[in-house]
Amino acid sequence: MNVLIVHVHPEAKSLTSSLKDFAVEVLTQAGHSVQVSDLYTMNWKSQIDGEDFLERLNYDRLDIVNESGKAFSEGSQTSDVIAEQEKLRWADAVIFQFSYWWFSMPAIMKGWVDRVFACGFAYGIGGSNRWRYGEGNLKGKRAMLSITIGGPEKDYSARGINGAIDDLLFPIHHGILFFPGMSVLPPFLVHSAGQLSEAGYGQVKANYRSRLLNLFITKPIPFRNQNDGDYDEAYQLKPGLEGDRTGLKIHQSIQTTVKKKQARTIAA
Amino acid sequence: MNVLIVHVHPEAKSLTSSLKDFAVEVLTQAGHSVQVSDLYTMNWKSQIDGEDFLERLNYDRLDIVNESGKAFSEGSQTSDVIAEQEKLRWADAVIFQFSYWWFSMPAIMKGWVDRVFACGFAYGIGGSNRWRYGEGNLKGKRAMLSITIGGPEKDYSARGINGAIDDLLFPIHHGILFFPGMSVLPPFLVHSAGQLSEAGYGQVKANYRSRLLNLFITKPIPFRNQNDGDYDEAYQLKPGLEGDRTGLKIHQSIQTTVKKKQARTIAA
Repeated sequence: MNVLIVHVHPEAKSLTSSLKDFAVEVLTQAGHSVQVSDLYTMNWKSQIDGEDFLERLNYDRLDIVNESGKAFSEGSQTSDVIAEQEKLRWADAVIFQFSYWWFSMPAIMKGWVDRVFACGFAYGIGGSNRWRYGEGNLKGKRAMLSITIGGPEKDYSARGINGAIDDLLFPIHHGILFFPGMSVLPPFLVHSAGQLSEAGYGQVKANYRSRLLNLFITKPIPFRNQNDGDYDEAYQLKPGLEGDRTGLKIHQSIQTTVKKKQARTIAA
Repeated sequence: MNVLIVHVHPEAKSLTSSLKDFAVEVLTQAGHSVQVSDLYTMNWKSQIDGEDFLERLNYDRLDIVNESGKAFSEGSQTSDVIAEQEKLRWADAVIFQFSYWWFSMPAIMKGWVDRVFACGFAYGIGGSNRWRYGEGNLKGKRAMLSITIGGPEKDYSARGINGAIDDLLFPIHHGILFFPGMSVLPPFLVHSAGQLSEAGYGQVKANYRSRLLNLFITKPIPFRNQNDGDYDEAYQLKPGLEGDRTGLKIHQSIQTTVKKKQARTIAA
């Protein structure tokens, strides 16, 4: 299978960069084809601006959605953006390897999303919101975040002070990756990354190897597809699903699955 | 009072830029001093790299936390970062004006956070985690996000398909702004920003004027301070608070406040 690794770290000797090298090695040995977009080495341009659109609809006022849609459909995007979109089309799975800075991805990786996820490619397909959340041009591809985190795991636990990591990652998992159709795997997380011992690094590699070898069989996070009947026409989760509960977890069908399993068990 | 507006949009005629101009006008007329950091116009550098640290501890391997701490304490940060930190020290309130791209801030604004929020300035104060979440160098300052959002409000409601906006903004509100000590106000949001009519824009300005004039009296989001007794020594929310519930809302003391009010009412 084809795997794209979008990698971000300014230091080639960092833990993050080592994990990227390790992933290339493990995946290649397992028979996969691997491409790496090493954004720092590529000197990736982070900010969207008028220069992103080679033939503008309107040079007097920049409307990013309109210009992005035109440039994507008419082939007047910049070559760096086109190259990344080609890699995404080629990929069966995408790994995002980065350090968790200020509870999100580093700026340069956000800039990759902002520029590569063009109108017509990752959103606004057919000029509508019909093809999103489980459907879209990236449907059928898998995505996994591989993140090194400075803080200890407990700070990110269900009642830890930072907030639960699943909730903190929701804007990326659901909003960036699931939105254009990707199946999102549980993240691979290395906590207390600054205090990792040699033995600890060995364990991290063993765990990561296992995740990499299972990349195409690991069960994705069960986010609800927009068009499978869980949401009403106003895009609200239908009454009865998850009771009246709120919170980000309601957008996963875990509990429904558990209930179905229980029903099956009871029936059996 | 002193207000810093950190502004991000590549188009000076955009709604986002108009709201920035409007805020400067309203705040100035109300007698406040205003500075604007217009990151696109400043050609702000988004990516942290070795060039951020003018006198390195180690030129062989870049450790960002260590180099950031040294550069901050010894005055060897770059002039652009120092200038922004000076503005933050000067400010009594900071407004972040941006368009909501891919469920977060644009890359260039994330790059402002990544670079300006240095070790010793916004985190790792005294080499520890003691001074964070309600305490830190930015304590006493107010922060407010002012965001234009393409999608309609209902998509971001409590059971809307995008996830509730309060939860989606938690990594910024709690993780970026409250972490170094700022009091975070409820955000000012303009939904369906691409479809705004002339009349709609008039209403938006009226609402924004009111928020701006109340900038120093609006009640902040009641995030729990780390060191006020709500968290145990392992930084877990203590049992009994919010029951056994999980989810990002538990890090606000809303329900406790309501209960106290109810208790007072009953006592009266």
